[in-house]
Formats: sequence, C-alpha cells, structure tokens
Amino acid sequence: MASSEEFQPNRIVTLTTDFGTADAYVGAMKGVMLRVAPDLRLHDVSHEIPPQDVTHGARVLRGACPSFPAGTVHLAVVDPGVGTDRAAVAVVAGGHAFVGPDNGLFSEVIGLLGGGSARRIDRTTALAPFLPTATSATFHGRDLFAPVAAGLASGRVRFAEIGAAHSCSAAPIGRRPRGDAGVLAGRVTHHDRFGNAITDVAAAELGARQVRVVLPDGTALGLSRTYGDAPDGTTLALIGSEGFLEIALAGGDARGVHGLAPGATVRIEIEPSE
Amino acid sequence: MASSEEFQPNRIVTLTTDFGTADAYVGAMKGVMLRVAPDLRLHDVSHEIPPQDVTHGARVLRGACPSFPAGTVHLAVVDPGVGTDRAAVAVVAGGHAFVGPDNGLFSEVIGLLGGGSARRIDRTTALAPFLPTATSATFHGRDLFAPVAAGLASGRVRFAEIGAAHSCSAAPIGRRPRGDAGVLAGRVTHHDRFGNAITDVAAAELGARQVRVVLPDGTALGLSRTYGDAPDGTTLALIGSEGFLEIALAGGDARGVHGLAPGATVRIEIEPSE
Amino acid sequence: MASSEEFQPNRIVTLTTDFGTADAYVGAMKGVMLRVAPDLRLHDVSHEIPPQDVTHGARVLRGACPSFPAGTVHLAVVDPGVGTDRAAVAVVAGGHAFVGPDNGLFSEVIGLLGGGSARRIDRTTALAPFLPTATSATFHGRDLFAPVAAGLASGRVRFAEIGAAHSCSAAPIGRRPRGDAGVLAGRVTHHDRFGNAITDVAAAELGARQVRVVLPDGTALGLSRTYGDAPDGTTLALIGSEGFLEIALAGGDARGVHGLAPGATVRIEIEPSE
Repeated sequence: MASSEEFQPNRIVTLTTDFGTADAYVGAMKGVMLRVAPDLRLHDVSHEIPPQDVTHGARVLRGACPSFPAGTVHLAVVDPGVGTDRAAVAVVAGGHAFVGPDNGLFSEVIGLLGGGSARRIDRTTALAPFLPTATSATFHGRDLFAPVAAGLASGRVRFAEIGAAHSCSAAPIGRRPRGDAGVLAGRVTHHDRFGNAITDVAAAELGARQVRVVLPDGTALGLSRTYGDAPDGTTLALIGSEGFLEIALAGGDARGVHGLAPGATVRIEIEPSE
Repeated sequence: MASSEEFQPNRIVTLTTDFGTADAYVGAMKGVMLRVAPDLRLHDVSHEIPPQDVTHGARVLRGACPSFPAGTVHLAVVDPGVGTDRAAVAVVAGGHAFVGPDNGLFSEVIGLLGGGSARRIDRTTALAPFLPTATSATFHGRDLFAPVAAGLASGRVRFAEIGAAHSCSAAPIGRRPRGDAGVLAGRVTHHDRFGNAITDVAAAELGARQVRVVLPDGTALGLSRTYGDAPDGTTLALIGSEGFLEIALAGGDARGVHGLAPGATVRIEIEPSE
Repeated sequence: MASSEEFQPNRIVTLTTDFGTADAYVGAMKGVMLRVAPDLRLHDVSHEIPPQDVTHGARVLRGACPSFPAGTVHLAVVDPGVGTDRAAVAVVAGGHAFVGPDNGLFSEVIGLLGGGSARRIDRTTALAPFLPTATSATFHGRDLFAPVAAGLASGRVRFAEIGAAHSCSAAPIGRRPRGDAGVLAGRVTHHDRFGNAITDVAAAELGARQVRVVLPDGTALGLSRTYGDAPDGTTLALIGSEGFLEIALAGGDARGVHGLAPGATVRIEIEPSE
C-alpha cells in the first residue's frame, strides 16, 4: 500500500450532513454504523449544512476535521447528485479518511491536509457483507456511505479493498480573482451565527504587512486583533478562528451593514514590504 | 420469560424527543442515564420532532430505529399527555426495547418489527433504586423514562421486572382509506427538509406494476427511479428512502407546488397485473 | 489539595455553547478533545444557547449539569468577552468540574452545588503540552477551553495544576426584588420550546402554602400540579421540571397571552402560614 494510502483506524467517525435532525435520516445512518460495530465512537459535526450547499459543507469540513486525531473517519453527505452518475468515494489524506460523494465536498480539507488518495466505492467482495442487497436510489448515506465508513473505522475493511483508484472532481469553491499588485478582491462567503461576515481571504495572503480593508459602502478599516479591541457598535476587520479575514460589528450583527451580504466584494489594500 | 420478551442489552440508548436543544431537558436526561451507568453509549436520533407531534415522532422512530443492532434501547418522549393518566411503558419488539409514553408513539415501529410485548412502568422493587423519590409531574423524561431506559440498557433491570403486562393503545397514524379497485387515495403526511412531499403509500402497495400518480392539481406522473432522472424544475414521483411514495421537484422544493401541502390527497392509478 | 478541590474524572465531558451547529466551531472543539484522549465520552447538552446570552446559558447549565455523575467535566462557552481581559477559569464544585470564561456562566450551577473552588487558566508547565503555541484571539473554545477540559477529563492534568486560585465574578442573573410581606414580584425569564413562560420564582420560595398568581393582564390563578389538570385552552400556573414557577396554556402556547413576554412581571400573593 502506498504511504499516502495509510490509514490506521481509531474507531472514531464524524458525521456532517445537510439532513437536519427533524427526520429519520441521521438516526438511520448511525444505526447502520453501529450494526457493523456497536462500539464505534460517533461524533456529530453538523447536520445543519444548508440543504445541498456543497460549498458550505466543504468549508465546515475544512474547519473541523483536521482537529481530530489521525485515524478518524469523516462521513459527509451533502449530495445534490444522488442517483446520478457522480462517483461515491473514500479518500485518505493526512492519516484521516473521508467517505461521501465525489462532488468537491472534500476538496478544501484535502487541500489543507496536503492532498490525498481516492478510491471509487465498488461492490467489491470485501464490501459486500456491509452493503444491503438493494441500495436505495435516493439514500446513499444509509445504504452506501455509512456501511463503508463503519467498515473502515472498525478495521473490518481496508482502504485498498474499497475499489479502484479514482481521481476526484474539482473544488466547489471558486478561486478568488487576483487584483492589481498590492490589492486583493475578497468575497464575503457567508455570515456565521454571530453575524460576522467571513471572507475568502486567508491570513497567509496578508502576511505581517499593514492592510487597509475597504467595505462595499466605502468604509475603510485597519486590522484589529480581537473583538474586544473596540467599543460596542464599532465595525472591525480581523483574522477569525479559521484563519480567514472577517468583518464583525462589536456587540452586534454585521449582516447587511456596510453592504456586507454573501457574495459582496471587500477590497484589501496591502502596504508594500520594505 | 416469553421469547417475545427477550432483550439482551448492548449498552446503546437512542434519544428521540420534541424538546429541542435550547433548554436543559435533553442534557438532564443524558445525565440521569450516565449516573446509572457512565459507559452507556448515548446516540441522538432527533430532538427536533415538532412539539407534541406524536404522529411525526412515530414516523421518525419507524425510519431510524430498525437500523440499530438488536439489543438497543430506544428512549422516546413526545408526550402531550404528561401528568394525565396515560400509561408509561416499556416495549420489547424484534430484540429492541422502547421506553416512553403509551400514546401510539411506538406503534409504527413495533408494527414494522412484527409486534411486541409491553409492560407498564411501576414503582416496583427492581426499579426503585433508579427512580427519584419524588417524580416531577411535568418531566417524566428525566424522572421516569431515562432511569428505566438506563436500567434496561445497563442490564441492571430486566424487562420482566418493570411492571405488569400491558396492552398498548392504538396507532397515532390514521389508516388510509382504500380507493376503488386499482386506485389508491394517498395522503401527503409531511415535507422533509429538502421540500419533498412524503405520502403514506408504501412501495409494497404498488408492487412492480405500472402506476400513474395524479397530484391535487391534476398533474399526472409516472414513477421515476431517482432524483437524477429529470432536469431541474421537473416534478417527479418516486419511492423514497423509507419506502414510501414521495413527490419531488428536481433541484427545487415541492412545498406548495401542484397543491402538495400536508394532508393533500394524491390519487394513484395502478395498472392491473396481467 | 483541599477537599473542595477534589475531582476524580470519569472521562465524560458535556458541551454547552452558543455556536449553533451550522459552522465548524463545535466539530473543531470535539476534535481537539479527542486528540488529547480518543476515548473521552463527549455528550452534547446544547449548542443552541441564544448568541452571547450568558443568562440563558447559566440557566441551562443549572438545569442539566447536576444530573450527571460526579467526575464529569462540563465545558461551556458563551463568551461575549472573548479577547478582552475576562479570565479563563476551571471550577470544581460538588465533584464536578467546569471549564469556560469567567463571566457568571457557571454561577447558578455552582450555587446549586453548594459553592466551588476556581483556578485561573495559565500557560503553566502542566498545561503547555495541551495548548497550541499560538492561541487564536477569537476562538478560545478550541484553543484554550477544549484542551483544558480534555486534560482534566482524561486525568492528564490535575485541577491544582491549571493555575492560581481565582475568585469568580458575579452572577449574571439579576436577583429578583423582594415584594411586600406575603407578595413576590416574579419575572418571566424566557419561554421554553413548548411556549411555557418560565419565571425566576423557585418552588422553595412558595413552600407548601396556598398562592395566588396574578398575570400582567390581571388574570389570577391558583397553583396546578400538572399540565393534565385542565382542558385545552386553559391557562395554568405550576411548578415546572426545573423547580421554577411557570405559566402554561394547556394544549397551546403561552407566548404573548396575558402579557406573558420575557421580562414581564408576575405577582405572587402567598397566604400567611397558620
């Protein structure tokens, strides 16, 4: 087995879906996994990914999965293409395994982990005992991804036994266009629960240099270190917990203020290094 | 012990309630169970059952519980009658145990599992060590159902010790009226998070025959195999992941389109077998 | 070690936050803890505390945590002051440990448990192996509280090693003004998911005496024992599951009826003891 395919399971499985928890879907997936091995350690990451929002799902996986110990299986289902010919895959990257649809959902976290090896889920001899004889055309989470995740996490199926090597499809998250020299055009990707406007500009792109952040309505800000740096009602630009530039309203909600809606452009002027 | 009462616990407890998670209720129930046995494996199915909607709760239990391995205890509390004289029960069916109010919440899943044996929860000698001396009149989830579930799951209380044999009350889900020969009158029971309109017509009622599905506004559809069968914006009839006929709008939300509201009637015309 | 500082971990960690579950925050905290010890037993209490509502968080901790067995670590993050100079603390009370910001979040539950001992989280030698070299200014949940909670729960860090003794800040929940002799002025603190209006009047304040509860619109009620005591549509006053006076509408939702909004005053007239 190639070293990039090495995976030593620790019996932990994380779950990330757009299923919500008002229906039976999440419970059914947990049950299927525990039927493979009743002592698996299942941990919910999110079932509140906005329905079929692969880009948001990719962002949550990037923010959460690398914190887990190597040996963890991450089961994720945000799958607008269920029932079409999109592939079902397992990917090993940085000692973690990912199981779900091949629609770019894993592209961000795998990039962060330095790349990975993918296999297309086939009804191979090794998988057969874990799969129902008839797979639902609409619920691959329960009938395909959960059994494969549990097989991997319990050590009853090895990664190389899952299927043929596969090349994953492209990232769901559009790359940001580059601006002029010294200027970046950032984009508001979403607001978090506190109303902070998160952008696609990574801390690494700014380095340690002085920056000036210009909001859609022309307001210009320097970079603050933390929410506590300003009195309530002040607008702040800072690097958030996942390493991206965000705009916050101290003690308030930045949704809609200064034109900060998802998709809006934020201009970042970077002072030249000396 | 009658064979229908056999229950070999596997230390797994699932939780299904209408409590939401913004209050302390769910945490209190988990704590009570872990005080009985700290190594119980608690798994959330749903805390987002619509408040006091026993019918929806019954549907979620039917869709989720049978996936779990035999030996699992399913604790469920959707209990508009708490504090009245409705019985508190434990039921064993198909090797699973169910603990909660006797209001029809378990009727669907027990029917699916082929029937079960019920016992009424009494303050018997065997249960006494697990119950608080004063039971709240309003929170049987914490004071009655959680301790009984944990007692069963840990093996510290046997099913036969819970109380006298009991005959459970009727199903909450109204039986669908039969139509003319070759015609079924289906009913939309609810929409799931993706906007699909789920009906009460089971796949088994259609068999392998050709069907024509007529929506409330007169639109007629054949049966598709999966969501991927049609371009975005097309309305589809298909068998969903829990085995019931559902109406979906490809790439969209079927709430309100073609008159598809909860309670609406869908007419199914079945071609005679040859 | 003083006896009030004794803590024997049982490997259980509860999580209570205002993060919601649509973002990566909760998953990141779980991952960090499992990297310290993969077999920790993580149990969600709530991630739906209203954003930055420390008072609501204190109420949920008071209602849920004491149900857990002694030896449990309760990790809680509702932290409007992250990045300011508010202290980060661990507290031991009644054999339980609490880890989070020192902003009054733990004051209610610690009061209920009979008081506790606090230590301020320092980057001591004992903690250093568990903390990232650079702590985010905005996400202490992942970078500070989760590692400390996991260190305590796994037994790899002892309470006394966390930092210097600390005196916690005041309670977030305003004390209710006392009324005339025989009269209490209660306040509606919030509505639960069922629409019941919960007040800050504890059962112990009423004792076993007769009371008359006067709602904001002048409606007067006696005290009922349970929701089942009245036909649908009747307004009831009763002691709820957490031991506080609440006003319910049988079979309905008490939000807005009789002037019962959060912050509204309810007058309680207590009959003199004989």
